[in-house]
Amino acid sequence: MTSRGPTARVRVRRHDGDDAIGGRATLAVEEPLEIRVDGQVVATTMRTPGHDFDLALGFAITDGGLDPRAVDAMRYCGAGAGEVIASGAAADLSGPYAGDFNVVDVATRDRSGAAVHRHRATAVSTACGICGADVIADLTARAGSVADVGLPITPEVVAAIAPAVRAAQAGFEATGATHAAAAVAADGTIEVVREDVGRHNAVDKVIGALAAERRLPAHRSVLFTSGRVAFEIVAKALVAGFPALVAVSAPTSLAVEVADRAGLTLIGFARDDAFTVYSRSDRVVEPPSA
Amino acid sequence: MTSRGPTARVRVRRHDGDDAIGGRATLAVEEPLEIRVDGQVVATTMRTPGHDFDLALGFAITDGGLDPRAVDAMRYCGAGAGEVIASGAAADLSGPYAGDFNVVDVATRDRSGAAVHRHRATAVSTACGICGADVIADLTARAGSVADVGLPITPEVVAAIAPAVRAAQAGFEATGATHAAAAVAADGTIEVVREDVGRHNAVDKVIGALAAERRLPAHRSVLFTSGRVAFEIVAKALVAGFPALVAVSAPTSLAVEVADRAGLTLIGFARDDAFTVYSRSDRVVEPPSA
Repeated sequence: MTSRGPTARVRVRRHDGDDAIGGRATLAVEEPLEIRVDGQVVATTMRTPGHDFDLALGFAITDGGLDPRAVDAMRYCGAGAGEVIASGAAADLSGPYAGDFNVVDVATRDRSGAAVHRHRATAVSTACGICGADVIADLTARAGSVADVGLPITPEVVAAIAPAVRAAQAGFEATGATHAAAAVAADGTIEVVREDVGRHNAVDKVIGALAAERRLPAHRSVLFTSGRVAFEIVAKALVAGFPALVAVSAPTSLAVEVADRAGLTLIGFARDDAFTVYSRSDRVVEPPSA
Repeated sequence: MTSRGPTARVRVRRHDGDDAIGGRATLAVEEPLEIRVDGQVVATTMRTPGHDFDLALGFAITDGGLDPRAVDAMRYCGAGAGEVIASGAAADLSGPYAGDFNVVDVATRDRSGAAVHRHRATAVSTACGICGADVIADLTARAGSVADVGLPITPEVVAAIAPAVRAAQAGFEATGATHAAAAVAADGTIEVVREDVGRHNAVDKVIGALAAERRLPAHRSVLFTSGRVAFEIVAKALVAGFPALVAVSAPTSLAVEVADRAGLTLIGFARDDAFTVYSRSDRVVEPPSA
């Protein structure tokens, strides 16, 4: 296997009906990344190398409860890299990647680690465990609501997001194994696009990129994901403050319930000029006639 | 929202070009399940209710390192259900589900909890974290190898698996949000099919179902997944002893590397009578001519 950056080439054998021929295939690279906050390990996640600072920062915010305002610097372990807050060249898809660079440390201002906590450790576990309603209540307490955030978007903009993101990721998607996420302005401008083998990672990379630019909460943007929408994706959207979430595939029941509760516009099956709105459809409006 | 079993109905608004009409949609249900071994919480996972005993048992084996031979009984917390080892009617898709039944306890013979350990806690973390090679070495030590397991399968059987599983899940897939996994015999017989909003959960349900019938290691079966194949799916296949894994979508680089190392036949893009073999293609052979 030869790997360089986010893709790798391998030898394969392709069967099609009665034919079988040798050849080569392009794969999405998957490597572990250890995410630390002030030196404490928060998680080890499997990810596609590239935009690692964005991933670490986004994950620490959406999963670790880190306050983005507390972040002071980020660095690779052992890389000798300078301390930077923005997602620099070293974390770019075109830059150096996994193997040498598999630990990212997020440093907060007071270096105490007090700004991060694993919310799962604090989830209430009663004698017979948590139910969907508990999960929703826990998230709402943690992430707040976007019910009062105004962000009118036209059906034309919604329908145009998926093709626009696909065009922006044309090369990388050759592997067939990566998901894309994006932040999109209400006028359809693609603000950030990130890719990863993990759907959650792609979303965290987008949120981390916005955080690095001090653009959270993301009240003026729509979050896009190329995959399905389960509870955790809605949770990440809400923690980051997006008032709307557009997905290519289906949401789950819990995703719709929590979107409804928190005032998030949840849109699924956004493909071929069509889409389905599951909650807060009032944000999807035709523009005033001229 | 009305939910009954593994699907729920919600009101939606569908946009298609200039049209927008109200209607209803079917969603896959997602609810939390707390998995315990001898009363100790191992994990809380979001899952589609149904076959919960299979999921709990499979997860405890593939992620918790539980030895399937140590399992004595399984029960829902607070459900008043009798102690059963097989995946009984109460855990079936058609049976009662989440809300009332959101904790499953796996009891081992000595009730000590000693049979389970979270392997992640034992993963080596050096100063600069783990890399792909470490992850592979760790898994190989834990799961062993299937390199010497013989399981010749014909290209015709491989190509027939995905349509056969799809036919078996025809109703549930209406939601567009569920993944399927299956255990398939070398002659193409579908042995077990399970579905879930989570790709990993569907695989764990299949492995748990086999474990409940004392059929691990699964040296005589092929594991099928309707999704992509990242490292964790290969890891689950190897822990359960499958010598071959067939997927509808793409594998990642790490999935292919570990399959290659452990002697697993890894097949991807199994659709429309075609498929790609990434490792140990010698198991895919034409039948001897009559």
